[in-house]
Amino acid sequence: MSEKLSGCTYKLSNTPCISTSACVGGKMEQQGPMHDCFDYTCEDDYFGMETYEQAESLMQRKAIELALDKNQMQNDSIDFMLGGDLLNQCIGTTYGVRDLSIPFLGIYGACSTMAEGLLLSSLLVDNGVGSNVIAVTSSHFCTAERQYRFPLDYGGQRTPTSQWTATASGALVVSAKGEAPYVRAVTIGKIVDMGVTDANNMGAAMAPAACETLAQFFRDTGLAPESFDHIVTGDLGLVGSRIVCDLLMREGFDIRPNHRDCGTMIFDTESQDVHAGGSGCGCAASMLCGHFVPKLRSGEIKNILFAATGALMSPTINQQGESIPSIAHAVWLSHDSGK
Amino acid sequence: MSEKLSGCTYKLSNTPCISTSACVGGKMEQQGPMHDCFDYTCEDDYFGMETYEQAESLMQRKAIELALDKNQMQNDSIDFMLGGDLLNQCIGTTYGVRDLSIPFLGIYGACSTMAEGLLLSSLLVDNGVGSNVIAVTSSHFCTAERQYRFPLDYGGQRTPTSQWTATASGALVVSAKGEAPYVRAVTIGKIVDMGVTDANNMGAAMAPAACETLAQFFRDTGLAPESFDHIVTGDLGLVGSRIVCDLLMREGFDIRPNHRDCGTMIFDTESQDVHAGGSGCGCAASMLCGHFVPKLRSGEIKNILFAATGALMSPTINQQGESIPSIAHAVWLSHDSGK
Repeated sequence: MSEKLSGCTYKLSNTPCISTSACVGGKMEQQGPMHDCFDYTCEDDYFGMETYEQAESLMQRKAIELALDKNQMQNDSIDFMLGGDLLNQCIGTTYGVRDLSIPFLGIYGACSTMAEGLLLSSLLVDNGVGSNVIAVTSSHFCTAERQYRFPLDYGGQRTPTSQWTATASGALVVSAKGEAPYVRAVTIGKIVDMGVTDANNMGAAMAPAACETLAQFFRDTGLAPESFDHIVTGDLGLVGSRIVCDLLMREGFDIRPNHRDCGTMIFDTESQDVHAGGSGCGCAASMLCGHFVPKLRSGEIKNILFAATGALMSPTINQQGESIPSIAHAVWLSHDSGK
Repeated sequence: MSEKLSGCTYKLSNTPCISTSACVGGKMEQQGPMHDCFDYTCEDDYFGMETYEQAESLMQRKAIELALDKNQMQNDSIDFMLGGDLLNQCIGTTYGVRDLSIPFLGIYGACSTMAEGLLLSSLLVDNGVGSNVIAVTSSHFCTAERQYRFPLDYGGQRTPTSQWTATASGALVVSAKGEAPYVRAVTIGKIVDMGVTDANNMGAAMAPAACETLAQFFRDTGLAPESFDHIVTGDLGLVGSRIVCDLLMREGFDIRPNHRDCGTMIFDTESQDVHAGGSGCGCAASMLCGHFVPKLRSGEIKNILFAATGALMSPTINQQGESIPSIAHAVWLSHDSGK
């Protein structure tokens, strides 16, 4: 049974593991510094489909199939799946997985979706609800741009603080039995809203949520930032990364020496014209599934604290003048089962 | 520990209960046949706010506060909450709960959201992850119309098969200890898509998903439809209700004598001009929280099988010609703990 520590951190006692994972990316991701971590990339943003939305769905399906193939798993060995994405009504997921015939639970955490799916599936598997559970998510630059900002053809100027939505998907299977990486503890985040209203500065809006959840994790577990090879935030980008480090310093935690941010990893922010870095559910998901999980499995990395962040707004409510509530969930992944 | 039966049905062994619930409604709901079941109704669709979206958020917050008040519970007695709604990026929920300082997990199941939240919180509480967990959802006629169909001022004609989105919210607390109703078993649904493309006939699109999940529950548990006072579907309306009964007959299950549908309960389909009945996350949620839960608590009803259904599409993908994938999750609620 998972043990609740003070706050909302749960220590997992049966050490569920990530038994397999895979990720898929687009052209920009293929050209970026992390190209080696993708199992499949496509130069065509349509991925051979007729619309961008269909392309995003295809990416999720492909990520799941690749992850299952790696472990020679069949669909019927999966108890159920948790998935969601940035698109209205999470259609990237629902149309991507509808033919798989796997029991499905939809989740929504914006760019924190992979952390939420991993956290929930780990809590369930740790307590015997499911032996193999999939967590999946995605984002696509073209679907996100037209939904959240402007039609691509409009050619709108992007601000220096804006981030580039990654065209990527990540899928993983949390299993009751298997090899590293093990899920050791999770922290369920609270919604934090510090009043930021600029939808082109998501990093600033989300950094306080990352600070809140990370500080909660450190206090609840008694672990220090230096216990981890990396403290990995999802998609804060250049602006938000600086803010989260500053905010955590004020709380007495210095994460600067081992902080990594998926938004600044996935693209070369100097040469790829992505302004403050990458974003989107698929950014943190692909960096987790394609980069950190394999290194944790091999033992090249021993421990990471993965905290993906999400901005829980919509264009409608933002245009009504509302600020941007954000959230972050944290998951401790380890090469060592702790048993 | 929850016991997995064949299929994706889990029998709960520690019988978590719904310790408190409350629901909020609008003017049409107040004028309807179920007006007595609402804890709070407002004649003004704005609920005193400036926009419909803010009104929907207020409804969720009010439903939660009313539910907690009934049991003299404070926010800090809640371990975490699960919530979502129909609005893009689930803003009805995220803006409604952002100030509560309760750890939050976003879910998305369209109109099945209350069943999904109840199912997940029951599985978690049954296994010791949380002692008190909130599930909450809402819908609002005016926010849904402008998002899914037309601006209200356009005055578009509605088809006879269309349903009227309920302006309502329901919140409940699943607790490890407490009185009836107890959660005895749950079935996680699969996505079903039979090719219906008419977004004005959601009942027809969702009925096959309800059939799939209910038949799965009956087969997995060995229970017959007559074991329940009511088989309660969420929001199939007049059209979908007829279809689900027909489909289940073919599977060998006759639910006609004790079938109730929240979409045909919440409004008077003869006099209220709602065409095929009510819909929206708040419809099934308010009928569950305000009607069935109190009757299960008092013992007036002994057992219900609650299966809310959701259509997992968006206007964008529907306009691209895609059909409507749907889902249903089932929860067995009982006056008897079974211990």
